[in-house]
Amino acid sequence: MLTRIDHVGIAVRDLDASIEFYESAFGLTVAGRETNDAQGVREAMLFVAEGPAGASYVQLLEPLADDTPVGKFLAARGEGVHHIGYGVVDVAGALEQLRADGIRLVDERPRHGSLGASIAFLHPKSVGGVLTELVQH
Amino acid sequence: MLTRIDHVGIAVRDLDASIEFYESAFGLTVAGRETNDAQGVREAMLFVAEGPAGASYVQLLEPLADDTPVGKFLAARGEGVHHIGYGVVDVAGALEQLRADGIRLVDERPRHGSLGASIAFLHPKSVGGVLTELVQH
Repeated sequence: MLTRIDHVGIAVRDLDASIEFYESAFGLTVAGRETNDAQGVREAMLFVAEGPAGASYVQLLEPLADDTPVGKFLAARGEGVHHIGYGVVDVAGALEQLRADGIRLVDERPRHGSLGASIAFLHPKSVGGVLTELVQH
Repeated sequence: MLTRIDHVGIAVRDLDASIEFYESAFGLTVAGRETNDAQGVREAMLFVAEGPAGASYVQLLEPLADDTPVGKFLAARGEGVHHIGYGVVDVAGALEQLRADGIRLVDERPRHGSLGASIAFLHPKSVGGVLTELVQH
């Protein structure tokens, strides 16, 4: 089902400072920036590598407010890895299969994600504590 | 400097149960299993995808004892993402450059990692809360 590691989603307090760090320390480059009001974040996708099934990114997420999911994550745990996004060919089909397997879903249907992708989150309680995102580009 | 997302390292309480979950839910397959006494873990690498610079994996880590780094992580935070591993061409050269940039290193010199790789960890305090591993296969 999983075609690649699409991205590592990292919660940060200061998006601009974090972008500058990943650029200067690791040589990554920004592939896209956007504000996602539905998810309550300002974010940037930093390109890591291109593969047969698509590219891989570091996704930096700054909350728009303290009472957003990423804002609450920062308050509880500080900066760090927030979620992992895996590539899939068909996110709706994958959700259907995972639901049938008894996996708890955050999103019952795909929704809009970064860089125009169709995405859905699985609940960390069903995936060994890892907030897991499926990404169809 | 970074050639790919090499792996996502996930702390788990029961390696066999976690392997079975990633196999059955997501269709991943085990590429290798080993015990790393120096790191205090029993682990498995589950293959996700092959790319131009090498493969990507989910790495499942079960601590050998409570007083190991992964054991302490589990006690403090529960199961979840423990670290992110990125591919590099030359881990020793990367360490030298990062040290010169003022990045705090966990490993001053490369050491033995999974699947025969040469690896080194960077300190999460220098990488926005993310325990970061460099991997040269």
